[in-house]
Amino acid sequence: MPKTMLAVVKPEAAPGADVREVKIPGFGRSDVLVKVRIASICGTDLHIFEWDRWAQGRIHPPLIPGHEFCGEVVAFGNEVTSVKEGDFVSAEMHVACGKCVQCRTGEAHICQNVKIIGVDADGAFAEYVVIPEANIWKLDPEIPLEYASILDPLGNAVHTVLAGEIAAKTVAITGCGPIGLFAIAVAWAAGAAQVFAIEINEHRRSIAQQMKADPALDPSRDDVNSIVLERTGGLGVDVVLEMAGHPSAIRTAFDIVRRGGRISLLGLTSKPISLNFSEDIIFKGITVQGINGRRMYQTWCQMTALLKAGKLDLHPVITDRIAMKDFSKGIERLKTGEASKILVYPNGTR
Amino acid sequence: MPKTMLAVVKPEAAPGADVREVKIPGFGRSDVLVKVRIASICGTDLHIFEWDRWAQGRIHPPLIPGHEFCGEVVAFGNEVTSVKEGDFVSAEMHVACGKCVQCRTGEAHICQNVKIIGVDADGAFAEYVVIPEANIWKLDPEIPLEYASILDPLGNAVHTVLAGEIAAKTVAITGCGPIGLFAIAVAWAAGAAQVFAIEINEHRRSIAQQMKADPALDPSRDDVNSIVLERTGGLGVDVVLEMAGHPSAIRTAFDIVRRGGRISLLGLTSKPISLNFSEDIIFKGITVQGINGRRMYQTWCQMTALLKAGKLDLHPVITDRIAMKDFSKGIERLKTGEASKILVYPNGTR
Amino acid sequence: MPKTMLAVVKPEAAPGADVREVKIPGFGRSDVLVKVRIASICGTDLHIFEWDRWAQGRIHPPLIPGHEFCGEVVAFGNEVTSVKEGDFVSAEMHVACGKCVQCRTGEAHICQNVKIIGVDADGAFAEYVVIPEANIWKLDPEIPLEYASILDPLGNAVHTVLAGEIAAKTVAITGCGPIGLFAIAVAWAAGAAQVFAIEINEHRRSIAQQMKADPALDPSRDDVNSIVLERTGGLGVDVVLEMAGHPSAIRTAFDIVRRGGRISLLGLTSKPISLNFSEDIIFKGITVQGINGRRMYQTWCQMTALLKAGKLDLHPVITDRIAMKDFSKGIERLKTGEASKILVYPNGTR
Amino acid sequence: MPKTMLAVVKPEAAPGADVREVKIPGFGRSDVLVKVRIASICGTDLHIFEWDRWAQGRIHPPLIPGHEFCGEVVAFGNEVTSVKEGDFVSAEMHVACGKCVQCRTGEAHICQNVKIIGVDADGAFAEYVVIPEANIWKLDPEIPLEYASILDPLGNAVHTVLAGEIAAKTVAITGCGPIGLFAIAVAWAAGAAQVFAIEINEHRRSIAQQMKADPALDPSRDDVNSIVLERTGGLGVDVVLEMAGHPSAIRTAFDIVRRGGRISLLGLTSKPISLNFSEDIIFKGITVQGINGRRMYQTWCQMTALLKAGKLDLHPVITDRIAMKDFSKGIERLKTGEASKILVYPNGTR
Repeated sequence: MPKTMLAVVKPEAAPGADVREVKIPGFGRSDVLVKVRIASICGTDLHIFEWDRWAQGRIHPPLIPGHEFCGEVVAFGNEVTSVKEGDFVSAEMHVACGKCVQCRTGEAHICQNVKIIGVDADGAFAEYVVIPEANIWKLDPEIPLEYASILDPLGNAVHTVLAGEIAAKTVAITGCGPIGLFAIAVAWAAGAAQVFAIEINEHRRSIAQQMKADPALDPSRDDVNSIVLERTGGLGVDVVLEMAGHPSAIRTAFDIVRRGGRISLLGLTSKPISLNFSEDIIFKGITVQGINGRRMYQTWCQMTALLKAGKLDLHPVITDRIAMKDFSKGIERLKTGEASKILVYPNGTR
Repeated sequence: MPKTMLAVVKPEAAPGADVREVKIPGFGRSDVLVKVRIASICGTDLHIFEWDRWAQGRIHPPLIPGHEFCGEVVAFGNEVTSVKEGDFVSAEMHVACGKCVQCRTGEAHICQNVKIIGVDADGAFAEYVVIPEANIWKLDPEIPLEYASILDPLGNAVHTVLAGEIAAKTVAITGCGPIGLFAIAVAWAAGAAQVFAIEINEHRRSIAQQMKADPALDPSRDDVNSIVLERTGGLGVDVVLEMAGHPSAIRTAFDIVRRGGRISLLGLTSKPISLNFSEDIIFKGITVQGINGRRMYQTWCQMTALLKAGKLDLHPVITDRIAMKDFSKGIERLKTGEASKILVYPNGTR
Repeated sequence: MPKTMLAVVKPEAAPGADVREVKIPGFGRSDVLVKVRIASICGTDLHIFEWDRWAQGRIHPPLIPGHEFCGEVVAFGNEVTSVKEGDFVSAEMHVACGKCVQCRTGEAHICQNVKIIGVDADGAFAEYVVIPEANIWKLDPEIPLEYASILDPLGNAVHTVLAGEIAAKTVAITGCGPIGLFAIAVAWAAGAAQVFAIEINEHRRSIAQQMKADPALDPSRDDVNSIVLERTGGLGVDVVLEMAGHPSAIRTAFDIVRRGGRISLLGLTSKPISLNFSEDIIFKGITVQGINGRRMYQTWCQMTALLKAGKLDLHPVITDRIAMKDFSKGIERLKTGEASKILVYPNGTR
Repeated sequence: MPKTMLAVVKPEAAPGADVREVKIPGFGRSDVLVKVRIASICGTDLHIFEWDRWAQGRIHPPLIPGHEFCGEVVAFGNEVTSVKEGDFVSAEMHVACGKCVQCRTGEAHICQNVKIIGVDADGAFAEYVVIPEANIWKLDPEIPLEYASILDPLGNAVHTVLAGEIAAKTVAITGCGPIGLFAIAVAWAAGAAQVFAIEINEHRRSIAQQMKADPALDPSRDDVNSIVLERTGGLGVDVVLEMAGHPSAIRTAFDIVRRGGRISLLGLTSKPISLNFSEDIIFKGITVQGINGRRMYQTWCQMTALLKAGKLDLHPVITDRIAMKDFSKGIERLKTGEASKILVYPNGTR
């Protein structure tokens, strides 16, 4: 076992990140040390790299980012009982406190004291990462390696889609970043009768079509409201999954949802959103849900089951695969808007 | 049977209303003619009287307003099978179309084509009113007469309170008009562990206390957010029932609801409401519901059961009782802010 | 318009049925006369034909049976507003009273006073059938004609499958008559991760496999309990849909459901069933549901949406197509156990 | 701190139990040592004392029984963070494994590997008891001491009552042991419109009346089915909470539940139960739930909230208070059928 490893490090409170040699982290009695096979880049990692306002308020460098990954168990503390060396694993990176009311009542995904590995503690853009046993998710070898590295965002999609009835429903997804794209596949697999995708970026829209969204609409050009009404018999959609966080997408969400429908909000907003509560919510009798993280661990059970059943084809979303030394290039790719999910290989080339 | 009756009539597109003699309305094969014992005044009637913007856009004079009432059956069409002369009844005044998707799937309270008796057709501020059989709600003689005349707003309260879990929950009610006041009683009867009332008007706040709200807070003076947090162990309330429709009450609703809580919106807004979706909804993982009308007829079953069980003391909310000829005086009383529910007696003095 | 038509008639309280000429039925102000394109044979029709104990207690001859069909509107009463001549329709044959508590609270499928067309009144094994407007279900021309004739049993399957969570769940279906076979397709379309079929009849088991059940087990030969446990990681299935009504199938249902799972019972039993409540229900914390009919009309919306989306391949279940004059031969085929769904064409050959 | 304590000990595989001096138990890093103020006797303790078949199969003497208690923290392991010396506590005595599917998906109350303190490990009929930190439930000093000692069975009642809708519902409780009696209070507090109690023992029936059951029926004398039908307008009750486990009580449960109603089963059965599934479950479209333990820790939150709100008067159920040295006399009292909940005081007289 070596003493050091390569990792992406955010060394200081400024834009950028380096790949450098650091000590392999130590682990406690109930922790698991995992050798990372693949880690993938999230929009959050871009915020950290760019050092935007959110990052300045939340991140305390030095930090190894990275919260989407898979790998294999190489060592663990003496109280760990549920894994063995060589186990193929991913992990829930939201470390819940276990003691707040939410944690004690089955709502750990909205824990009052959550810490996120890769945000609040060293993460997975590294050859090794340390994870508490309770957060380890053992994987069936049938789960493809690449999919195993994107369970965190896939879980966001699964959580959002399955937060209400979906079978036989008409669904619209506003915003087709990776989570929105995954949500298309999940909604379709879970019995959605129709999935509209609404996305301004052409690259993403084209992947949405590969995921079987029909139609994939461009709100800069298409009359989205009219098209949705026309194709739902004048009714509007049963369910909107809001993944964009942009005011105009949110406006569309409330316009196209039918009376009695559901809007599940996942896309984070940076600006205030203005609504006419009477018309937008009350008279229509709709339900609006805030969706955060993944249910621990119902969402993980659900996505594992769907993946094992072969019900999700996620390949179109994985657009880039890079060695960890090229992490900054990956970030640049992401900024072009022409990459969706980028996989990073910390241990040798893929 | 006489040919004419006295009724409150909105004669033309202008403020005001008269009490005048009009023909007793005819009724169809499946209609029921009811002799009104008590009708009660709603905020909507005030809008109609004042001829505000909403009224100008919705009301087509001449119109007899009034949509909260009770009375007895005096005649009915030849296809009517479920009532007999003398039956004590109230009615759901939202006449649903029965044919839209919402109606056919148990959601008639958000019917696409609803007509409201007393708004879109002649209503109950009259000696007689015509109601379709399907909308008649037969009452147990055990239900007090006065309560029977306010089932419409009581139903709004019951629908809102029971739109999610309430037993053993902490609850805040923002806005204590009659529906808010009823909601205090309903929440308490349905097992709420604590009911905060938040209301700026002193008269209403004092009734809220009679309804067992504890504490009844004055947002113009009390630090509502701090008090709620302190009295919920730092957590916030499980459920907010928003009955005010005012931007600052809605702001409070989102501030005091706990992570994973529910906000049920009933109070109609006249201005746009601005929210920070990320902080207010998504990270907290809350559910926001729009509440409209009463479920047909689950809500009616529920409120009848609660009333028969003697679980609701609504007397403090009924502040005024007037003869129909004094209708305009009743409206003036309502405008003072010192009256809550005003009962109108169309047939002789009470 | 002719005055008479051919129909299958159960003329008297004895086994058998004739095809004979009868008067085309008259219709009321709110009724619709439908020219039947296809009617299909249900197990209930077999009971009526055979004149078993159930039939003797329920049926009052003369009766035209048949409660699964599609056709086109040829005439209607003067109060009918929602159809026009030539409309392609099917119908919910459970005519609910509309006035009992269940009907008034969105549970018309368990109406206290239900009458079933084809059981309690003349049905669809005829050139024409009369249906109340409220029970008509207008069909999109995209729905295949053959599927349109089997919406009643498909609806039973949809109601059963969607009576609880199904996406990402492991499911077992005990009993693969037509409804069980349809349930395989529906469960799979609605996101089930694994669908076990358990059926003793080889013909049915082979269709179950075509519907994508995997595995289709023969309880007379396979060790069902062990196989299910092994293929669910020792857990048991999340959901059992019981479609057999046979004591040994029901025993299996309770054996293989996991702790916290759901058993939805549709298969009618003719014998008492004995359970160990402590072990079978209480310690496992399971939920057992009785499923009757189809939700009016949520189930109809759901199945229409799934069919329009092309998510259900039901062809393997339709094994026979016969002219109405050969009705008795159809019954004989059904009794062989080698036919599943038999379509009957009352108007000319198909 | 002393080295020894008095405790009730089941010394060997035979009927009876002794009060004897034993070592105060040691505790681990994440355990809490509690000085017991009150422990209360459960029917399970009677089985253990009597050494019946169930006890012979489950209990491994020597054992200190007792799984209902309250007390104060006197010491704890060095990883414990959530309590301090002197804290007033009770505990969930079902120690869930935390690793099975049920535990990881919010269903720890049906953990596959549960161990029960007082059944599988030394319990609370002792001066001191050791509890894992995760199972400790800290109590508000406002909770009365006596109530704090009966949270385990009260939690069974709360779990059962709140396992479905209860507000404005008619409810029948079959079997009025302590949990059934508590359920009366909980149902009433949670908004039940009517609570029937059905119990053959006169002592229990009289307490049921004190708990506000109305009526409390004696199935050996009253025509329960007729009375329930008559007092529910011919409908039957919305909810049955089955707490007896006796075949005739279960028969009654299925007879009196209305179409679409709920039966929640808590009472353990020792004999097979025979049902007519078609008539009893399927045509009625009812839901039958198995209820086990208490939800961890939603039930605990709920009962704490109800108790703090002063919504539950449980005093009539507490019939006896004894010093621990008189444990065997308590068991004898229980066997008379004239005692309901018996409180045991291990540390000095009460």
